[in-house]
Amino acid sequence: MTTTSLPSGDLFALAAALVDVPSESRNEQEITRLLEVELRALAHLTVDRIGDNLVARTNLGRSRRIVLAGHTDTVPADGNAGARIDGDRLYGVGATDMKGGIATMLELARTLTAPAIDVTYVFYAREEIAVVHNGLLEIEAANPALLDGDVALLGEPTLGAIEAGCQGTMRVEVSLVGARAHTARPWMGRNAIHRLGVLFNIIETYKPREPVIEGCAYREAVQAVHVEGGVAGNVVPDRAMLRVNHRFAPDRSIEEAEKFLRNLLAPGLADGDTLEVVDASPAARPGLDDPMLAALVARSGLEVRAKLGWTDVAFFAARGVPASNFGPGDATIAHTSGEYLERQWLIDTHAALVDLLTHGV
Amino acid sequence: MTTTSLPSGDLFALAAALVDVPSESRNEQEITRLLEVELRALAHLTVDRIGDNLVARTNLGRSRRIVLAGHTDTVPADGNAGARIDGDRLYGVGATDMKGGIATMLELARTLTAPAIDVTYVFYAREEIAVVHNGLLEIEAANPALLDGDVALLGEPTLGAIEAGCQGTMRVEVSLVGARAHTARPWMGRNAIHRLGVLFNIIETYKPREPVIEGCAYREAVQAVHVEGGVAGNVVPDRAMLRVNHRFAPDRSIEEAEKFLRNLLAPGLADGDTLEVVDASPAARPGLDDPMLAALVARSGLEVRAKLGWTDVAFFAARGVPASNFGPGDATIAHTSGEYLERQWLIDTHAALVDLLTHGV
Repeated sequence: MTTTSLPSGDLFALAAALVDVPSESRNEQEITRLLEVELRALAHLTVDRIGDNLVARTNLGRSRRIVLAGHTDTVPADGNAGARIDGDRLYGVGATDMKGGIATMLELARTLTAPAIDVTYVFYAREEIAVVHNGLLEIEAANPALLDGDVALLGEPTLGAIEAGCQGTMRVEVSLVGARAHTARPWMGRNAIHRLGVLFNIIETYKPREPVIEGCAYREAVQAVHVEGGVAGNVVPDRAMLRVNHRFAPDRSIEEAEKFLRNLLAPGLADGDTLEVVDASPAARPGLDDPMLAALVARSGLEVRAKLGWTDVAFFAARGVPASNFGPGDATIAHTSGEYLERQWLIDTHAALVDLLTHGV
Repeated sequence: MTTTSLPSGDLFALAAALVDVPSESRNEQEITRLLEVELRALAHLTVDRIGDNLVARTNLGRSRRIVLAGHTDTVPADGNAGARIDGDRLYGVGATDMKGGIATMLELARTLTAPAIDVTYVFYAREEIAVVHNGLLEIEAANPALLDGDVALLGEPTLGAIEAGCQGTMRVEVSLVGARAHTARPWMGRNAIHRLGVLFNIIETYKPREPVIEGCAYREAVQAVHVEGGVAGNVVPDRAMLRVNHRFAPDRSIEEAEKFLRNLLAPGLADGDTLEVVDASPAARPGLDDPMLAALVARSGLEVRAKLGWTDVAFFAARGVPASNFGPGDATIAHTSGEYLERQWLIDTHAALVDLLTHGV
């Protein structure tokens, strides 16, 4: 579907239009083009485009500045490309993660011409793939001042609650070795694919930690996300590869999480095998003592809980900007083929943000 | 290395020259071209080329005809491309499986201008990949009479023994399903890659049958040969695929072997999973009562044993032509990076075949 402009005045219709623009990671050109046209039409905003990222700022000389940030990309569609509306529910890849958040940001940018706090709207690319490709890093490399602010809110799906901090994430690649042989004489070799079984047993029986930090309860996870191996249909394979994703709570550093994961998997590894960290992103502590976050929670009576998934909250936290997730989707259905967005979630999130931006701290 | 002609009079040098011609499955053009030049230069042979297969026949009106057949392709090199000679040992992919056999056939074709038995030499392509691609099927489709004979010997590596019959082989593809979720909330989904662990446990703990048939002891096998799965680095995968190769003794049909394999793997399968047979080739009984096979064994005092790997013996057996493997390589090192060929193995195999073809039954 080719969209030439985006609806205004109806958040739900706007979210549906955004879901109808395919934007799997690395294919954010079209959605970015559409957003850029909208933002450049707004006289109260200064707009910068860096790659497929957009930064739009008010410049009112307020004493405080809030950054509202959201990623425009989605995971690959799983039979759910495009918008499908059923009553007040919008289905489609990205509906919940996070085109509802993008719709909310765009509507705020259009309508709040003189907020009580200066606002920086950041629409960025490639959040759903390895962090090295993340659009925030591209903006930072080109012009880091564009990301300055006193506090940041990420529009990730939280069902309208404040999800404080976030868990860290780490991907490791494990290579198992074996010895090739003809499959008619397997006792002459060692099957590297069969050796994966020990690792799967470890991962399936491991009990995740569930630490409570600043009153927020986290829950860690270890999951295999990719496997490959094989030489030929009649060869005992001498190599197999497994990628594992580990999510860790904010009481652990990247180094501590790596040590934990190496120890966990060690019983499945032998001489010649390797375990390498492919990428890692730190966790972020909740940081609920920031005055703007505290005001948002107090004014709107929002629920506060731990964020289990990694989000770019950690990017801002690492740069000294307290940050939280606050968005209209439901994270428990993100990345599933049935993800959806409810009209009311959009309305509630939008109302809370209008209240904060209109009245300030 | 580009070879323009092949050495003659020195079997070991000839085998080395053949190893120096890369011929991984589907890339047999160059080795076939070289063999064709040699065979067409021999006035006592009628030569037919069908695709990348060659059939060269004597037409002496003898009462019996023997088929000597060998495949020209090899498995992919594993750091062992090209010939490396260390004393009387020749290393390199294909050295043992089965360029020594090809060298022996070519030398017999060149030198035995008036054998006591008519001889059909068959050099064929694509034996090391799925049987549907096998060059013998291509010859049969084009001109089945070219493969007629009273008995067949395949030059597969047997260390100069007669390896009678062969085990059957079957490849199945198993697809496991799961449910996608975000890896930060794996309890919302089901990891299809983790589910492979149960199958690996079954395969690793299974005890293979070792039946004795016509005095030959077989040994079955089940091995994973390919695995793949994964959606994205932050998604609990909902699909994983495993290919398994099963080798079965000649007391079982393809149907019986499939039933066995389905029962074996059933405890690892669930609703929505599939198990499909990708390809299958029947086993062949030893067939040692054929007079020419019996004469070869008696005259040369050769050892007789069971063939564990599948070979095209089964192709001929299924068409009523008794067949055995008899070649100069060592099957226990075939398809390994260290495969090699000894000079003496070539000399002994060649001598036994010269004796049979010169004196007949």
